[in-house]
Amino acid sequence: MAKVLLSVFLVLVAVSSSLGKPEKNTVKKEKRIPQTLSRGWGDQLIWAQTYEEALFWARKGNKPLMVIFHLEDCPHSQSMKKVFAEDKEIQRVADEDMIVLNLMYETTDKHLSPDGQYVPRIIFVDPSMTVRADITGRYANRMYAYEPTDAKLLLSNMQKAKKLLKTEL
Amino acid sequence: MAKVLLSVFLVLVAVSSSLGKPEKNTVKKEKRIPQTLSRGWGDQLIWAQTYEEALFWARKGNKPLMVIFHLEDCPHSQSMKKVFAEDKEIQRVADEDMIVLNLMYETTDKHLSPDGQYVPRIIFVDPSMTVRADITGRYANRMYAYEPTDAKLLLSNMQKAKKLLKTEL
Repeated sequence: MAKVLLSVFLVLVAVSSSLGKPEKNTVKKEKRIPQTLSRGWGDQLIWAQTYEEALFWARKGNKPLMVIFHLEDCPHSQSMKKVFAEDKEIQRVADEDMIVLNLMYETTDKHLSPDGQYVPRIIFVDPSMTVRADITGRYANRMYAYEPTDAKLLLSNMQKAKKLLKTEL
Repeated sequence: MAKVLLSVFLVLVAVSSSLGKPEKNTVKKEKRIPQTLSRGWGDQLIWAQTYEEALFWARKGNKPLMVIFHLEDCPHSQSMKKVFAEDKEIQRVADEDMIVLNLMYETTDKHLSPDGQYVPRIIFVDPSMTVRADITGRYANRMYAYEPTDAKLLLSNMQKAKKLLKTEL
């Protein structure tokens, strides 16, 4: 619905600017829609901007961190995003019990790619700063990948991440 | 104006929810406004999310990168942000000729804090990946700090950064 309204709005903007007096730079000066940190993975969640920020919050709040690697032009990322954003229970747990970060570019920290760099890929990090390489999806060749049909597994992995590695603190 | 409207809206939300039947979690379920990547430094600019992303774009587009370190609860950052966002020439050059990144948390790269970590601090990076430690403000003790009265100096430093270190490429 929001998307439909947005399209209508953009069409109106286009029509009204093409009706207006031609001016220098009109083509260029269309208003951009500000980029959000959620990038469609849940506008109601509070997203960390960078890995450093996310680690700070995880330690401070003693909460697990969930890092989602994705790409705008990857259909698997897009379909996983839709499921993630629309699943109320995933959104609730992410909101209440986790620090969340979504990234389209890899960090320099190799621990975040235990079996390679691919998308979509979801890695949990304990507030003790330990990457939870033990929390995996169901694919042997890409252990941190999730498909839209894996929403329940993802939710149970989120619950698993909530059991902190207290002995490491 | 947008702020006034927002306040009115928030008051209305508060009033209407206090008038409504009390329900579990009503306090909590107020709609959050999605966070933007601009954080008020210019909604019309295209902001990189992370330093890694910004470096990728700088190299790809052969454009200098401008990294702004700031904090929400720092009055110097806030006043500098206002000047930056409202200065049309700064916004134009940032939009057309630079890759921009604003960060509230330090990165692990020490080259981005040549004389310490403080805010506000603006560091230019050449697309050859060289931090332009030679492009400074007017304060000897905090060489990369800018005050609102330094808008012209900042603009001329942006022009300086556009002269790329081609010999290093």
